[in-house]
Amino acid sequence: MKHISSLQNKVIKDILKLQEKSRERRKQGLFVIEGKREINLAIKGSYEITSLLFVADKVSDDFISQFENADVIEVTNDVYQKIAYRESTEGVMALAKTKNLDLQNLVFNNSSPLILVAEAIEKPGNIGAMLRTADAANIDAVILADSKTDIYNPNVIRSSVGCLFTNQIATGSSEEIITFLKKQDIHIYSATLQNSNAYIDEDYSSASALVVGTEATGLTDIWRDQATQNINIPMEGVIDSMNVSVAAAILLFEAKRQRNK
Amino acid sequence: MKHISSLQNKVIKDILKLQEKSRERRKQGLFVIEGKREINLAIKGSYEITSLLFVADKVSDDFISQFENADVIEVTNDVYQKIAYRESTEGVMALAKTKNLDLQNLVFNNSSPLILVAEAIEKPGNIGAMLRTADAANIDAVILADSKTDIYNPNVIRSSVGCLFTNQIATGSSEEIITFLKKQDIHIYSATLQNSNAYIDEDYSSASALVVGTEATGLTDIWRDQATQNINIPMEGVIDSMNVSVAAAILLFEAKRQRNK
Repeated sequence: MKHISSLQNKVIKDILKLQEKSRERRKQGLFVIEGKREINLAIKGSYEITSLLFVADKVSDDFISQFENADVIEVTNDVYQKIAYRESTEGVMALAKTKNLDLQNLVFNNSSPLILVAEAIEKPGNIGAMLRTADAANIDAVILADSKTDIYNPNVIRSSVGCLFTNQIATGSSEEIITFLKKQDIHIYSATLQNSNAYIDEDYSSASALVVGTEATGLTDIWRDQATQNINIPMEGVIDSMNVSVAAAILLFEAKRQRNK
Repeated sequence: MKHISSLQNKVIKDILKLQEKSRERRKQGLFVIEGKREINLAIKGSYEITSLLFVADKVSDDFISQFENADVIEVTNDVYQKIAYRESTEGVMALAKTKNLDLQNLVFNNSSPLILVAEAIEKPGNIGAMLRTADAANIDAVILADSKTDIYNPNVIRSSVGCLFTNQIATGSSEEIITFLKKQDIHIYSATLQNSNAYIDEDYSSASALVVGTEATGLTDIWRDQATQNINIPMEGVIDSMNVSVAAAILLFEAKRQRNK
């Protein structure tokens, strides 16, 4: 077991880079997971842990013994505070290998998968919130189209409360995703106010992808043009926009309601 | 028209206090609204504007002419930047009188009102998100029970994107609210995982209050004991909690779906 007490240590410097830069995460093929609960969920989600860093007395030997194939490193509290992204004082973090997020890796265990597609989402908090909802609804996959945010961003992990690890996730361009969905005979329901039917009037019991875009600009034309059916959530109030993660939740749970009937 | 260029001016000092302290808002009976769109929504929502502060060239004379009964004050950009809570450079803010939020002031325009009750919510962002959803669903009222956050908190206004002004809002203790709802024959559906039916199995077409609590602790016993029916959103994933504003949206839009059928 190694001990690190210096902020000048290369491992520590590398972790700081991983926390801050998506470019660095891509380069190293690694990302940082903070917190025991999140690390356990990542293991359950088949992520490969390469390093475990902890502050003495903060974690049990039992917990640490799970990581015999990883670099196990004890760090001082000062070092931990410096590299931790979250305010929490949990005192344990891991480095894990990023996964290959190609569409081709998605595996559907039933013939009528329910999928959430989110296009060009920028705010990590919105991605995290959608991953939580996707977990609660136990859908088959979350696909990020032309994502503006790296899913291994520490804010995504934090706001997903670990649901980054419990969902099947893929990324791709909108074109690639549409081609993929059509090839698999998955219906595309694009959420857009223009030329669309009320979402409650459609039937999502066959293989369905529900597609949402940003609040500011909505979905791009390709999703509207290539949809099996455009759908809308009627806005009956004064303001005519809805938070994207709220819209995703309303659509996914309507699909679930129909399927559970 | 007054001009203020000094941060030492009493008006400016009072505004800073109003931005920061709910106690000060209660004492002065005033709160701060930033942005033209939000100010317009507040006027539409019958809020009384007592002062308008603006930076020269940022707003039109037409806009300012609406406020002949208010103190209209031109401030320097430096002063504005100091008192503005939001990063936006819109350059206009108003002081408005807080409303009396007693339950007795609620007016229902139909015999089967749909109401959201949220208990002990702490995060302003969650209150703001629920106000947005309540606006979109055009429900009859939002009631905050034993609220941990003042609704005139600048973060509530910001995250509600002005929906603070488009909803009918009341506050009270859980006891008061339950007494009020029962007196009006409004059914109480309390969202809780224990001893509850799936939310999709209940009928919300008569007068209904949907009640949600915090993620961390859920609803207090009184709401569970006094409910017409306890309801749950089935959690089918790994994580068994849901963001309160997401839960509120799923419940409200299911009630709307039933009512619009």
